[in-house]
Amino acid sequence: MSKLDAVIQDLIIANRILAREDVVDAYGHVSVRHPDNPKHFFIARSLAPDLVERDDIVELGLDGEPVRQESRALYLERFIHAAIYEARPDVHAVVHAHAEDILPFGVVDATPLRPVIHSGSFIGAHVPVWDIADKFGDTDLLVRNMDHGRDLARSLGGDNVALMRGHGFASAARSLIEVVRLSVYLPRNARALQRAKQLGGKIKYLSEGEIAARAGGYRPSSPETWRAWEYWAHKAGCGHLVTKPDQHEHKPKT
Amino acid sequence: MSKLDAVIQDLIIANRILAREDVVDAYGHVSVRHPDNPKHFFIARSLAPDLVERDDIVELGLDGEPVRQESRALYLERFIHAAIYEARPDVHAVVHAHAEDILPFGVVDATPLRPVIHSGSFIGAHVPVWDIADKFGDTDLLVRNMDHGRDLARSLGGDNVALMRGHGFASAARSLIEVVRLSVYLPRNARALQRAKQLGGKIKYLSEGEIAARAGGYRPSSPETWRAWEYWAHKAGCGHLVTKPDQHEHKPKT
Amino acid sequence: MSKLDAVIQDLIIANRILAREDVVDAYGHVSVRHPDNPKHFFIARSLAPDLVERDDIVELGLDGEPVRQESRALYLERFIHAAIYEARPDVHAVVHAHAEDILPFGVVDATPLRPVIHSGSFIGAHVPVWDIADKFGDTDLLVRNMDHGRDLARSLGGDNVALMRGHGFASAARSLIEVVRLSVYLPRNARALQRAKQLGGKIKYLSEGEIAARAGGYRPSSPETWRAWEYWAHKAGCGHLVTKPDQHEHKPKT
Amino acid sequence: MSKLDAVIQDLIIANRILAREDVVDAYGHVSVRHPDNPKHFFIARSLAPDLVERDDIVELGLDGEPVRQESRALYLERFIHAAIYEARPDVHAVVHAHAEDILPFGVVDATPLRPVIHSGSFIGAHVPVWDIADKFGDTDLLVRNMDHGRDLARSLGGDNVALMRGHGFASAARSLIEVVRLSVYLPRNARALQRAKQLGGKIKYLSEGEIAARAGGYRPSSPETWRAWEYWAHKAGCGHLVTKPDQHEHKPKT
Repeated sequence: MSKLDAVIQDLIIANRILAREDVVDAYGHVSVRHPDNPKHFFIARSLAPDLVERDDIVELGLDGEPVRQESRALYLERFIHAAIYEARPDVHAVVHAHAEDILPFGVVDATPLRPVIHSGSFIGAHVPVWDIADKFGDTDLLVRNMDHGRDLARSLGGDNVALMRGHGFASAARSLIEVVRLSVYLPRNARALQRAKQLGGKIKYLSEGEIAARAGGYRPSSPETWRAWEYWAHKAGCGHLVTKPDQHEHKPKT
Repeated sequence: MSKLDAVIQDLIIANRILAREDVVDAYGHVSVRHPDNPKHFFIARSLAPDLVERDDIVELGLDGEPVRQESRALYLERFIHAAIYEARPDVHAVVHAHAEDILPFGVVDATPLRPVIHSGSFIGAHVPVWDIADKFGDTDLLVRNMDHGRDLARSLGGDNVALMRGHGFASAARSLIEVVRLSVYLPRNARALQRAKQLGGKIKYLSEGEIAARAGGYRPSSPETWRAWEYWAHKAGCGHLVTKPDQHEHKPKT
Repeated sequence: MSKLDAVIQDLIIANRILAREDVVDAYGHVSVRHPDNPKHFFIARSLAPDLVERDDIVELGLDGEPVRQESRALYLERFIHAAIYEARPDVHAVVHAHAEDILPFGVVDATPLRPVIHSGSFIGAHVPVWDIADKFGDTDLLVRNMDHGRDLARSLGGDNVALMRGHGFASAARSLIEVVRLSVYLPRNARALQRAKQLGGKIKYLSEGEIAARAGGYRPSSPETWRAWEYWAHKAGCGHLVTKPDQHEHKPKT
Repeated sequence: MSKLDAVIQDLIIANRILAREDVVDAYGHVSVRHPDNPKHFFIARSLAPDLVERDDIVELGLDGEPVRQESRALYLERFIHAAIYEARPDVHAVVHAHAEDILPFGVVDATPLRPVIHSGSFIGAHVPVWDIADKFGDTDLLVRNMDHGRDLARSLGGDNVALMRGHGFASAARSLIEVVRLSVYLPRNARALQRAKQLGGKIKYLSEGEIAARAGGYRPSSPETWRAWEYWAHKAGCGHLVTKPDQHEHKPKT
C-alpha cells in the first residue's frame, strides 16, 4: 500500500472511530493533510462520518475548495480545516465536532475546560473559547468561509483545541492518531471536570509540569497509542482496515 | 413511487429514527399531513414507533377520527396532532413524545428551555410550557379529546415546540424531515443547558438574531439536512427505505 | 396454551424485559402469584434474569420455600416476594431490583421520591423508605428470612413501591404487566425528579387527583398497556413469546 | 482442564467482562497471581482487554518483568500489579482502570468515596487517594517502575481500592471473581454517591458493621457471586468459556 493510500485508509478509520465513540454524529468531520503536498488536505464529501468510504474522500486546497472538478456537495464548514492548516504548518490532522459533553463549557465562563485526568492532558493547559459573534455578530454560527475560519484559527493560536461557543470544538494535532485520541478524551475530561465541580471543593487540575511531561513523552507510534487506535477501530467495525505497525519489541529480562 | 407513497415511506422512516434516537419509546408518535388534502393526516395505529410498518398507517381527519372504517386501536392522544393541524395551516408534520431529558424543564419554572447550541436553534426563541391542569384540573394528563388538543395548540401558538408539564412535548414543523431533526436536537439542547447551569455563571443563549439567521438559512432539501436524515435512517436499520433526492451539485473550482 | 403456561411464559418475558431495560442486572428478580393457588408463587432459581428460561422457574410457598424437592440454589431474597404476597392479597406480581437511578433517593432524606411525570404516576403518591437497620441493626442488608421480609412488607403497607435504604426497591402490583411497567418507569421518574431539582425552583409534582385519575383509568388489558409490553418484549429479543390478546376495537367514525 | 488453564481462562473472561462493563476501555488491565507460584502473576501483553486471547497472556515476576523471553510490548503500568502482589500476600488478583465515574472522587477532596449501596460494600470502609505528585512531583502520572508501584501499594495499605488522583484506581482482592465484582460495582457506588450528594441532605453511608457483615458473609463460590460472573460473561460474549462450578444444593422443604 502506498503512503498516500495508507493515509486515506487511516482517514476512513478515523471517521468510523469518531462516529462510534460519539464524538461526531450526522455532523462533524475529520481531515488529514496531504503527506506530500502541505497545501492540500483530504476530507470526506458531505456525508455522516460513519458512512464514509474510500470514494467519498475529496482533496481540497488551503482555500477550502476542491482541487479537482467535484459535483458532489461538500461540508459547509470545511473552512475550519483549511484555515487551521494554513495557519499551523505543524498540524497534520484536524477534527471539528459537537461532542455533547463539551458544549456546556462553551456556553458559560465560570469553569474553564482544563485537564483533570491524565488522558485529557493532550487538550493542553489552555483551551480558548471562540465566539463567532465577537467579530461577525449574528450569524447561523457556521464557519462558512475563510474569514470565519481564519478568525477561529487565530483564536486557536498555538493550542490544541478551541471550543466554539454554542456550537462545538476544533482540535488540531500532528497526526490522525493523535487528533482522534485527543478528540475522544476531550469529552471524557469534560465529564470528569463537570462531576468534580458538582462534588464541591477545590479541583486538582493536572499541573503544567504534568501536562508537559505527558506531551513530551508522547509518540504516535508507541504501543500505548497504537493500542487505543486498534481497539477503537475494532469497536467501530473496521479493525480489518488497520495496518499493523512494526512489532514493538520488549527488552526481555536478562 | 407516487408522492403519497413517498410521504408514507418517510413517515415510517421517521417512526424508526425517533425510536432509535430515544425520542420515543413505547409511547410517542409522529404524523404527517396528507400532501393533497390538508384536512387529513397520516399516523400509525396504536403501536410502538419502532415496530411501525406500511400497513400500520391510518388516515385521520382534523377531528382526530379515522376517515375509513378502522377496527384497530388508535393512539389516545391523536388529538394533539389533529388540533395542531387545525390551528396551523403552515404545519405539515407533528411529533409528540416524552424524551426524558426535556421532562425536568416542564416540571420547574426556574430555567426556561431556550437554544444554547446551534443545532437546538430550531426549537425557536420561545418554548411555552402547557399545563393541562390550568384549564382542566385533575386529569390523567393525556390529551384525550379535541378540547384538550385545542388548548395545547393555543399554548403552542406560532411556536415550534410546547412542553407539556409532567408529560412531554409537542413539536410542529413544515415537513417530516424538519420535525424529526427538531425533535432529536431538542433533548440534546436540554442536556447542554442543564449542564451549563450546573457549571454556574451566566449562560450565553443563542441570540434572537442567531436563531433567525439559522431559521432563515434552513432548507429541508439542503445537503446538510439530508445528511442527518440519511445517517439516522441508517442507524435505525432502514437506510434502504430512504429515497435519494436529486444530487446536490457543488460549484467546482475554476 | 393453558392459563398456567401463559402466566409462566409472561414471567419469562418479564425477566427479559427488566434485564433489557436496566432495571435488573445479575441481581434483582420478578415473581408472579400462582393463578389458581394464592398461597404459591413462581420465580426463577438463582440466575440472572436475562438468562431465565422455562425450566428455571420454581414454585414457592408463602414461607419462601420450594413446594417441591429442589436441588438448585434459590434467590437469597425470595422472602421479599413471599412476605408481600402474604401481607397483600391484592398483589399478584412483585419485583425486587437495584435500578441505579433510584438508589440516591434511598440514601438521603432531603428529596422524597414522588411522581413528577405521568408515566411515573403508578409508583403512587407515597413511596416509603425502608431501612433494615431500624429493626435489625447491622446486617448485610439482604432480606434473608421471613422476619426481614415481613418488616419490609409492613413498611410497604398499602403502597406500590418501597425503597430499601442502600439497596434498591420492592414493587407490587395486580399483574405482571403492571409491575413491569411500574418498575421500568420508576427510575425514569427518579431521573426526571433528580434533574428538576438541579434546575432549581419549585417542583410541580403530580397532584393527588392526577395520580388517582391515572390509577383509576388504568387497565392492564388496554391497548396502551399492551403497546409497551409488546415493544419491550421485542427490544428484549422475545417478541415471539408474546401471546396476542384479543384485538381491541376502535369505534369507527359514523 | 488443569488448574493453571482454568485460571488463565478466567483471566480472559475477566478481561472481556471489564471491557463490556465499561470499567476498562483501550486502557486498564487485570492480572491474577500464579496459583502455584506466588512470585509470579499473569497479565495480558499491551492490548485492549476486550481483544485479549489465550496467546496474549504473559507471566511476570514480582519485579514486573517477564519471566521468559518476550518480544511483544507490555503494559507500561504492570508495576501496579507487581508492587501490590509484593506487598500483599493475601491478594491474588488486581485491576487497574480509569472507569469514568470514579475519576471525580480522585480530583476533589470534599466528598470521600465510601460505600452507600450494598453492592458497593466490597470497596471497604476506607478508600485512600494516592497522588503520585506527593512523592514524585511532576510526572506523566503513569506508574512506570517499581518505585511508583511501591508508593501506590503503601497508600493502598490493607484496603481494597486506592484511587489514583487524575488517573483512575487500583483494586485488589483474594480472587479474580472478587476483584471483577468489586471493580464493576465501584463506579456504580460512585454514581449513587454523586447523585445522593446532588439531592442534598445527610448521606446515609453503609455502617462499618454493615460493611463487615457483608465482607464476612462473602464467598467467591456462592451462588450469588457465581450468578454475576456467569451473567457478565454472557453479556461479554464469552459465556461459553465459563466453567460451571459444582452444583450448589438447596436444602429442600421437609
